[in-house]
Amino acid sequence: MRTRTAPKADPSSLAARFQAVRGLSVALVAPLSDADASVQSMDDASPAKWHLAHTTWFLETFVLRDFVSDYALYDDRFPFLFNSYYEAEGQRHARGRRGMVTRPALGEVIAYRAHVDAAVLAALPDLADAARDLVMLGCHHEEQHQELLITDVLHLMAQNPIEPAVWPAARKVPVAMPGPLGWIEGVAGVIEIGHGGDDFAFDCEGPRHAALLSPHALATRTVTNGEWADFIADGGYADARHWLSDGWAWVRGQAIFAPLYWERSDSGWTRFGLDGRRAIDPAAPVTHVSFYEADAYASWAGARLPSEAEWEAMASAQDPESGNQLDAAGPVEPRPATAGGGWFGDVWEWTGSAFRPYPGFRAVEGAVGEYNGKFMSGQCVLRGGSCATPRGHVRASYRNFFYPHQRWQFTGVRLAKDL
Amino acid sequence: MRTRTAPKADPSSLAARFQAVRGLSVALVAPLSDADASVQSMDDASPAKWHLAHTTWFLETFVLRDFVSDYALYDDRFPFLFNSYYEAEGQRHARGRRGMVTRPALGEVIAYRAHVDAAVLAALPDLADAARDLVMLGCHHEEQHQELLITDVLHLMAQNPIEPAVWPAARKVPVAMPGPLGWIEGVAGVIEIGHGGDDFAFDCEGPRHAALLSPHALATRTVTNGEWADFIADGGYADARHWLSDGWAWVRGQAIFAPLYWERSDSGWTRFGLDGRRAIDPAAPVTHVSFYEADAYASWAGARLPSEAEWEAMASAQDPESGNQLDAAGPVEPRPATAGGGWFGDVWEWTGSAFRPYPGFRAVEGAVGEYNGKFMSGQCVLRGGSCATPRGHVRASYRNFFYPHQRWQFTGVRLAKDL
Amino acid sequence: MRTRTAPKADPSSLAARFQAVRGLSVALVAPLSDADASVQSMDDASPAKWHLAHTTWFLETFVLRDFVSDYALYDDRFPFLFNSYYEAEGQRHARGRRGMVTRPALGEVIAYRAHVDAAVLAALPDLADAARDLVMLGCHHEEQHQELLITDVLHLMAQNPIEPAVWPAARKVPVAMPGPLGWIEGVAGVIEIGHGGDDFAFDCEGPRHAALLSPHALATRTVTNGEWADFIADGGYADARHWLSDGWAWVRGQAIFAPLYWERSDSGWTRFGLDGRRAIDPAAPVTHVSFYEADAYASWAGARLPSEAEWEAMASAQDPESGNQLDAAGPVEPRPATAGGGWFGDVWEWTGSAFRPYPGFRAVEGAVGEYNGKFMSGQCVLRGGSCATPRGHVRASYRNFFYPHQRWQFTGVRLAKDL
Amino acid sequence: MRTRTAPKADPSSLAARFQAVRGLSVALVAPLSDADASVQSMDDASPAKWHLAHTTWFLETFVLRDFVSDYALYDDRFPFLFNSYYEAEGQRHARGRRGMVTRPALGEVIAYRAHVDAAVLAALPDLADAARDLVMLGCHHEEQHQELLITDVLHLMAQNPIEPAVWPAARKVPVAMPGPLGWIEGVAGVIEIGHGGDDFAFDCEGPRHAALLSPHALATRTVTNGEWADFIADGGYADARHWLSDGWAWVRGQAIFAPLYWERSDSGWTRFGLDGRRAIDPAAPVTHVSFYEADAYASWAGARLPSEAEWEAMASAQDPESGNQLDAAGPVEPRPATAGGGWFGDVWEWTGSAFRPYPGFRAVEGAVGEYNGKFMSGQCVLRGGSCATPRGHVRASYRNFFYPHQRWQFTGVRLAKDL
Repeated sequence: MRTRTAPKADPSSLAARFQAVRGLSVALVAPLSDADASVQSMDDASPAKWHLAHTTWFLETFVLRDFVSDYALYDDRFPFLFNSYYEAEGQRHARGRRGMVTRPALGEVIAYRAHVDAAVLAALPDLADAARDLVMLGCHHEEQHQELLITDVLHLMAQNPIEPAVWPAARKVPVAMPGPLGWIEGVAGVIEIGHGGDDFAFDCEGPRHAALLSPHALATRTVTNGEWADFIADGGYADARHWLSDGWAWVRGQAIFAPLYWERSDSGWTRFGLDGRRAIDPAAPVTHVSFYEADAYASWAGARLPSEAEWEAMASAQDPESGNQLDAAGPVEPRPATAGGGWFGDVWEWTGSAFRPYPGFRAVEGAVGEYNGKFMSGQCVLRGGSCATPRGHVRASYRNFFYPHQRWQFTGVRLAKDL
Repeated sequence: MRTRTAPKADPSSLAARFQAVRGLSVALVAPLSDADASVQSMDDASPAKWHLAHTTWFLETFVLRDFVSDYALYDDRFPFLFNSYYEAEGQRHARGRRGMVTRPALGEVIAYRAHVDAAVLAALPDLADAARDLVMLGCHHEEQHQELLITDVLHLMAQNPIEPAVWPAARKVPVAMPGPLGWIEGVAGVIEIGHGGDDFAFDCEGPRHAALLSPHALATRTVTNGEWADFIADGGYADARHWLSDGWAWVRGQAIFAPLYWERSDSGWTRFGLDGRRAIDPAAPVTHVSFYEADAYASWAGARLPSEAEWEAMASAQDPESGNQLDAAGPVEPRPATAGGGWFGDVWEWTGSAFRPYPGFRAVEGAVGEYNGKFMSGQCVLRGGSCATPRGHVRASYRNFFYPHQRWQFTGVRLAKDL
Repeated sequence: MRTRTAPKADPSSLAARFQAVRGLSVALVAPLSDADASVQSMDDASPAKWHLAHTTWFLETFVLRDFVSDYALYDDRFPFLFNSYYEAEGQRHARGRRGMVTRPALGEVIAYRAHVDAAVLAALPDLADAARDLVMLGCHHEEQHQELLITDVLHLMAQNPIEPAVWPAARKVPVAMPGPLGWIEGVAGVIEIGHGGDDFAFDCEGPRHAALLSPHALATRTVTNGEWADFIADGGYADARHWLSDGWAWVRGQAIFAPLYWERSDSGWTRFGLDGRRAIDPAAPVTHVSFYEADAYASWAGARLPSEAEWEAMASAQDPESGNQLDAAGPVEPRPATAGGGWFGDVWEWTGSAFRPYPGFRAVEGAVGEYNGKFMSGQCVLRGGSCATPRGHVRASYRNFFYPHQRWQFTGVRLAKDL
Repeated sequence: MRTRTAPKADPSSLAARFQAVRGLSVALVAPLSDADASVQSMDDASPAKWHLAHTTWFLETFVLRDFVSDYALYDDRFPFLFNSYYEAEGQRHARGRRGMVTRPALGEVIAYRAHVDAAVLAALPDLADAARDLVMLGCHHEEQHQELLITDVLHLMAQNPIEPAVWPAARKVPVAMPGPLGWIEGVAGVIEIGHGGDDFAFDCEGPRHAALLSPHALATRTVTNGEWADFIADGGYADARHWLSDGWAWVRGQAIFAPLYWERSDSGWTRFGLDGRRAIDPAAPVTHVSFYEADAYASWAGARLPSEAEWEAMASAQDPESGNQLDAAGPVEPRPATAGGGWFGDVWEWTGSAFRPYPGFRAVEGAVGEYNGKFMSGQCVLRGGSCATPRGHVRASYRNFFYPHQRWQFTGVRLAKDL
């Protein structure tokens, strides 16, 4: 997990929310075998079982251990195994070795979840405000891990030469190709961004503060697979002029020639997804591209990436619960744009902004506070949520962040330009 | 697998042998979960599931596909997944990526085994001699993989911070500490070594040929854990004078200070084994030491390692089916020496001989022939089998081989000296 | 080199400037042997000889080849050897292999310089405006390489176990210890930053644009060696709470415990410099610290790093030619602060700003334009110049940039805080 | 250096020998600049300056320091810089960092040599026998470094894109193409090999001992460049069947397709040598091939490599001072075979024997004894000397050794076969 500010939550709706969130995680692993849930496909990814256990450890530690007086740990070996990066919480298992932990098995982790869930629900009515806030934080934390779980499972299946589908394909509704990219002029001058209210937000979203925008416009929609295929066909991956120096070194060093999971077949480009390998949909938003690729595409297109302030200023008028977001377990993927939508869901949109603290930002004290402040170097901000983001999780002020080469999340591109 | 010469086999005993071997492999994975059987703990190791499937692929390919006219492959994706290194058999999955294959699951692989076993047994009565020889080869091949399966599972469990035991501990029979090391003088002059008869042997064991031995003696038993603890206590791992230059670089670079799986506790040295972490038995043969460690110990002890010819000359008078070898699934480990035994079983004994071809050696033509010849650089010969070697598998002429830094097999040390 | 906007230059003063700059480079290598000038101490550094030749190649290519009609290349093998990263100018020698080029020798490169200098000076009176601008650009380009040459030579000498001094120590003027850090309140609200005039600046310094500042204060001076020793003594390098996550991984992975070139002796901390190894001066600005260290120090001190806009707003009232900057070849190093100074020279000051394009930034077309735009990912902005920056080179709007782990430049820290 | 047994030497001829050897080293660096002599081109190679200094340190330490009572070290920083691997002699500079030592300069090292030479010559008449033996050992040691110096300089020049020639080409005497390979039958049965007399030999050459040879034949000459070009043309580098498993991994991983320093030009294969890049001579022995390549060639040719005992048995009847060996500084290279010669000089011949101790081998005690014993793992024996071996240095019993992938020495191939 990565941060927060003051959450607020009333007991009964909190219990319902808690049960819904916890239930969705278990639903997500329903199609997985014990092995599927235990293997780690790369250092950046974690086993599905680890996500299930780590989110549970979070609740057990910060809620039950710290606020429920007679609570005994379910298994005193679990904190070492399932702590992620909370240095203040003591030693932890090396991140890249998470896939070695074949025991406890998936079933045992699900039993651990049930135990902790029951304990939290039993304690909830009498819990102090601070602890209820932590339960709410735990829900948001878990939603973040749900998205990671989905993308980590996708990455694992992609390593298997037989490319198993996690779910059968969803029925596709035919959609017309989106028209040419339009532009929306943004407001210029001093505006306000960042989270400011009393409802839940992660620490890095605040404080709310003034920002200054130059005259600019943002594209009406994100870049599509069809447009990306044009970029490839035009030699986009082979022309150093479009690329940042670090990006060019990455493209050459890793032999990158298309988005992650794309392969060329006799009949054109295909992509691997949660429903297996299929032809790309030219009308759908391109995804699984890195910041380097996003920036190179923008350069090739004579445009640039939006700043996070430009993005937030425009998206703050939109409904953050709209769009193609995660509602239930299934083979989520970005879908062709429909008119007027697209600020939330489908793909996280790379911005040109480095992930740095806002003016007046202060890290929270204590272990739970080890969230976002410490990640504020070397990463880029993404906005808007994706098809794998649980609906209700994201906001206009929500700041996601990844390193510029990473692309196993559902990451895409919206263009911007100066006016 | 690694090689052969002309095997011989009569149908009925072959069927019995085949069923026994195939059954033991399945028994070995009985305590494993799907995840236990699917994870790969390092590049040198393979998942247990892969061993089960690869040995089956071997039979399916070289017996059923090549000799049973109407046989259809069980799954045409399996050859790519489960070929190991037979370049002539086409593309194969990268060795270090075997742990990514969470599907087919363990259960499906066991079903694949059952299918192939039935097909082989059905075909056996009418099989050509060459094919029966390949079934026998397949049995020997599988026995090699049984030992690897055991040591790979041990290695995997050792990566888990909670160090699960694969099996409960066996009941230990109290044994007196072995007495001081004695020496047995070997024959000097021209002798014969290597496999020469009609019964089964791997290609690298022949041809039988003359060898010349200088006056020498071999130790009456292998080095014990207690003696090894003395070596450590005497600063053996910290004194460059005992070590080969490559060994010293390995010790320093990898921060090696004891055999693999050893840890120091308040009450002395412990080791991790198939029955979990327990105190070392000072009377039992030391194991999980590399060639570098074996050579350094010998140097510290004022001795040297035996040559493979010296070893074979002395062991050829012993019963290769004697000693502590694998009879059934369980927590095998080296046991304290009893009087007069110890040439076979317990631990593979590092020799000072490089694994190179015998005079007159010729690689067999064709895919099955890609066995031992190609591994004849950079590796050292080990002799005698171990507690994880299926009884009946090893011979006095049997040559096992590993790189000098490898130590996840049950490898130990017998001293030698010039007279 | 790294970028520009429209330079302006009149012929006679340009000739004088050109000769002065070119002369200083040669003076800097006077104490170096052929070997000193040829060896490359790490991938980030270049041999002194390469700096001398590369800056000459720049002038030969973009001025003589492109604008002097009958000019013949001095040696047609040199463009391959001495091009740095101008992809549009064709293949070039791998950066990390520059130290393999022992021939041409230092003397030959100095002869190459003399040849090109004479040709430029001869051509200067008749040169088109665009070419004169390129000569001016070449001077600024060379000044950048002078600073790199100094820091690269320092790094090389530090690799030699006998730690040779490049120059004898300068006579030190005794200076009182600086008093406690004071704070200067900055202006808040919308200000303007960036280069806007007609005089020379690199491309990334513009366009001039509005920026918005929150209430803040900057420290009156940079952090001293004495204060840094307090940070170390307080366990600063061993406490994860102060560090960015990437920084903590760097500190642990590289076993970092003090600024580069510091060593602990019986009588306290020493540093290696161009005059050899000597005790640190507690009153002088700390230098050779990375962004990660700068950020951790600020965190420890309850402060933060300035943004580049805050820094520029305050420094723009100062004389950029003041302070401890490079005037002549010699053992430059940061010096104890004197009252009221310190915005320019001594040490480059890490800011908290990522090196990203200003609003409205456009990369220049063509090979010379491959400057700063392509480096705009993953790096941090530094401001103010150092003791190794040629006087006259730096401006309030000047943006230097390095990766957060790099610290072989003269890099230091000024604190900031929110008000 | 790498080892010895009891050397014998009378004072006057020893002085002459000493002066000749020491003089040749200096002659070898005559064409080198300070930079040429200081740069290290890879971890396996050392700067020429280091070879000059290290051989001098050897004499200063083991002769002057240990046997000349009032001798004061020339520079007490030099032992740390110029010790190579004598662990007993204390800390030493990391091997891969030798190229960072630009000071002392080449000229200073030559002065160091002159000082030590004068001291040794002055002390020689009164030196104890043991010390005179060490002077003789120092001569042999220096001859080994002369060969390394030549091959290291060649490797360095090959890294420079302009490929400088170290010396002008020697005048070539036209020679007819050698005829087809003939075979010489060797003796079979028990023979004796190894050094046994009183004259100088390195420790690993003894003890003299019986060895057993099977019926075999060796080729009349080494493999030529022309034959190697046929191997390439036949797809030898692309066919896994010819290669050892380790060799195939090396060929694939390093993208090897020809001997080191070979390049294909429009008019055929060229090679880089001490006289620059030139067409290969199809009649000359192939050189700069690894053990892996040698073994693959032999496999392709239906032959094998000789054992070291086979080689020595046949070569012991030849004059070790015959053939193309190093007599004076100049552009040495393998030359077309003339009738009846070729056992000594031209190219070191890879054998199929691992470098392991002979029966009865014992490492010498003390620092000088840290020679060959510690290198006895992972390396292969080469025999016969090369065009870069000082004439008089090599013997029939001489054992050189390198890792199977190394090929920057003048290494070649003689075929063998079983009879």
